[in-house]
Amino acid sequence: MQKDERNLTLLTDLYELTMIAGYFEQGKVKQMANFDWFYRNNPDNGGFCIVAGLEQLIDYILNLKFSKEKIDYLRSLKIFSEDFLNYLKNFRFTGDIYAILEGAVVFPNEPLIRVTAPLPEAQFIESALLNIMNHQTLIATKAARLCMVTQGDSVIDFGLRRAHGPDAAIYGARAAFIGGCVGTSNVEAGKRFGIPVKGTQAHSWIESFSSELEAFRAYARTFPDSCLLLVDTYDTLGSGVPNAIKVALELEKKGHKFLGIRLDSGDLASLSKKARQMLDKAGLKDAKIVASNDLDEYTIESLKRQGAKIDIWGVGTKLMTSYSQPALGGVYKLTAIDEDGEKMVPKIKISSNVEKITNPGKKELYRVYNRDHNILGDIIFLDGENIPERESNITVYHSMYKHKKTRYSFRFGIEPLPLLHPVFLKGKLVYQKPSLIEIQKKTRRNLEMLDEGYKRFLNPHIYKVSLSEKLFNLKQKLISTH
Amino acid sequence: MQKDERNLTLLTDLYELTMIAGYFEQGKVKQMANFDWFYRNNPDNGGFCIVAGLEQLIDYILNLKFSKEKIDYLRSLKIFSEDFLNYLKNFRFTGDIYAILEGAVVFPNEPLIRVTAPLPEAQFIESALLNIMNHQTLIATKAARLCMVTQGDSVIDFGLRRAHGPDAAIYGARAAFIGGCVGTSNVEAGKRFGIPVKGTQAHSWIESFSSELEAFRAYARTFPDSCLLLVDTYDTLGSGVPNAIKVALELEKKGHKFLGIRLDSGDLASLSKKARQMLDKAGLKDAKIVASNDLDEYTIESLKRQGAKIDIWGVGTKLMTSYSQPALGGVYKLTAIDEDGEKMVPKIKISSNVEKITNPGKKELYRVYNRDHNILGDIIFLDGENIPERESNITVYHSMYKHKKTRYSFRFGIEPLPLLHPVFLKGKLVYQKPSLIEIQKKTRRNLEMLDEGYKRFLNPHIYKVSLSEKLFNLKQKLISTH
Repeated sequence: MQKDERNLTLLTDLYELTMIAGYFEQGKVKQMANFDWFYRNNPDNGGFCIVAGLEQLIDYILNLKFSKEKIDYLRSLKIFSEDFLNYLKNFRFTGDIYAILEGAVVFPNEPLIRVTAPLPEAQFIESALLNIMNHQTLIATKAARLCMVTQGDSVIDFGLRRAHGPDAAIYGARAAFIGGCVGTSNVEAGKRFGIPVKGTQAHSWIESFSSELEAFRAYARTFPDSCLLLVDTYDTLGSGVPNAIKVALELEKKGHKFLGIRLDSGDLASLSKKARQMLDKAGLKDAKIVASNDLDEYTIESLKRQGAKIDIWGVGTKLMTSYSQPALGGVYKLTAIDEDGEKMVPKIKISSNVEKITNPGKKELYRVYNRDHNILGDIIFLDGENIPERESNITVYHSMYKHKKTRYSFRFGIEPLPLLHPVFLKGKLVYQKPSLIEIQKKTRRNLEMLDEGYKRFLNPHIYKVSLSEKLFNLKQKLISTH
Repeated sequence: MQKDERNLTLLTDLYELTMIAGYFEQGKVKQMANFDWFYRNNPDNGGFCIVAGLEQLIDYILNLKFSKEKIDYLRSLKIFSEDFLNYLKNFRFTGDIYAILEGAVVFPNEPLIRVTAPLPEAQFIESALLNIMNHQTLIATKAARLCMVTQGDSVIDFGLRRAHGPDAAIYGARAAFIGGCVGTSNVEAGKRFGIPVKGTQAHSWIESFSSELEAFRAYARTFPDSCLLLVDTYDTLGSGVPNAIKVALELEKKGHKFLGIRLDSGDLASLSKKARQMLDKAGLKDAKIVASNDLDEYTIESLKRQGAKIDIWGVGTKLMTSYSQPALGGVYKLTAIDEDGEKMVPKIKISSNVEKITNPGKKELYRVYNRDHNILGDIIFLDGENIPERESNITVYHSMYKHKKTRYSFRFGIEPLPLLHPVFLKGKLVYQKPSLIEIQKKTRRNLEMLDEGYKRFLNPHIYKVSLSEKLFNLKQKLISTH
């Protein structure tokens, strides 16, 4: 694993630069501001998201620096003053970032990353933060959906060839691993993040030999201990599986272990059942059946229902592009600003669509568990509120309707746990990055703690994200004074 | 503009490496092979694609090299022999690549990139080629669709925050420019490719001041000559537009030119019409109206039909993720291989789905024009066939049905033009990259030459891609001997 040292400082919408130029010219560079990253809807009408991307966000912040070359380019645009370009030379991120950890299961309208910094700094990081977090969270969530539906079977990322450029494949593979995939075909992602890499041969391998049997034998000679054969080039059941069995028995005779076969076309339900019978009949009960071919969570669910005998699922396009919903609509909104140099004034964004009204102020996010350590609901408090401890009760509110309230009892030795952790304090990294495998485990634990009702694909339960009484009242006050 | 020097050698599916290891161990490293890149269906059920990505493919090939660090990683996988790892040290691309040029309008099942090289080299570049070309072609095509529908209005890429990671935003902006966008919000893409960068302020700018009017005035003070104001933070017609007009008149009094306003929410049809009236009434007839907010080609078409008064369209998510179809299914297939060390033997991939049967052999692609320089159809020939010249006639065939034939007469001084151009010959780059603006112009010219019937969104005409008689007969012979 290696730190990404790419300087992505200019990976920004121009308006971040014009705004910070404006803040600079208008004497607002020291004014403190608070922004939140959150999203409003779960992808695919699902019940949750899995957060991913924090490690790359950290790298981005650490590498943030306007080099001379970048400033020269900005000068060439002829819209910025020399004073401002000079100011950029020493521009760094000097604020605080609190973030939910990667692998956490999260829900709409929760503050997932909270940035508190001088206004230009907090503003400037918006574009890259959204680019990185929206992408990886989208893919990790899609992977989690896929891994739920395979019921313990392995899922492998095969999506490099359809991902949106190199980064989409590399960071997408990382996010897919966080979501639960056991491996990737992408060697660069394997090298960079320590993800197990998988893959054997394509149809072109088979076609480059004079016969399928010769192609299989050649592969077995080269990789006797990792031999998995693609059986659908000519006739899956007529030649592919019988030839694979022939080579498998030759391999096993020599003391090697045959891994299995891959199906990449046709009716995977019926082909896998028949192939399984043929393999079993030949005594190859341990041989695995890998399936690929435009799979997504819905086709896998259907194949499972039909009793397909598939052990390993290779998922490409539909995973790496999150095909059924290729964007997470995460946003980054101003929630408080220091207007008088003394204290942060909460800000709200009003919309005629009530679901788009933001939660104002600098906030804390807590999660409530029951005695079985299942997740019950989340509560958003205002920063600095007294958080109830165990052996107490609390009444919290729906984000807009006071009559919709929830009462939690923190008994059984269980107290609500804070979800936002310090990552940067006064610009210094204070967070120890976990390994990718730890993050993947966190995802699995989080999903285990989440009731099935939130995990189903069709009309999942809506998870309760409540506001504390203080936050509810502040929000209503700001709405009514607008 | 700068050359991308990133070494993406390990941006590959593992199976490319296991296959070339197999070719190496089985003594097949000098066997020549031919592969084609093509796609089977136009995205969004459209009538065409616009090719993009060749420049990044060239950079990838030029930078292709297994460094010691990469080989050490591959060794750590414990599946490759030392002999093979040694072979990789000097692995380079030494073959020929012919490609259709960026900006060309293209159609399903045409050979768009033809790679002729020793089998391991031709095989190895598959994953990265598909990743790069599928992505940029997808986005360029989406951009072209958007630009067709705005009927000459400018379209700007605003999609960085929803693109799939940094590259998706950077190369996506490049592809969007090729497709016809006039600019991008993405500063890195602007710097790297010379694309004009655009953008002014977000809602957070407005909210960071005590009033909307003060926020507008502060922006106008900072950018008196590039002042475009976001008017929907509080009440578009009630405060936003009136405040913008006030500031505009103050600016114009001081001799500056007011640029215009941006609408980012609400009913863009009605708001834009009313805002236009208000601006005109205030004497600001030159002020532009920019619109954004989850736009795509269908909403723009509808807004145009409703008579919306929008001059510039900012398109983000739906463009940068090609939301309605986020993957181009481009594939890379073996079409010929040297089996006896003497000559290339054509290969075909049979499928029960006749549309998936490939066109065998090393091929040439030609385009036929009429006397008005409109595009009539494309013809795929076998390499080495005599291509008819002007003043002759030719009968060509549907890819599967011989009774479906087309007769072209090359009169009026018009002859068919070859579309595949040499890019690499024996591993040497022989192609002079055009500027991005030249590529954008090529797209525009190509689309002007294409009949309207192929450009409509609903049930477009199917463009004729025919086979020469020789190719048709070869294909049928290979199908029947299979």
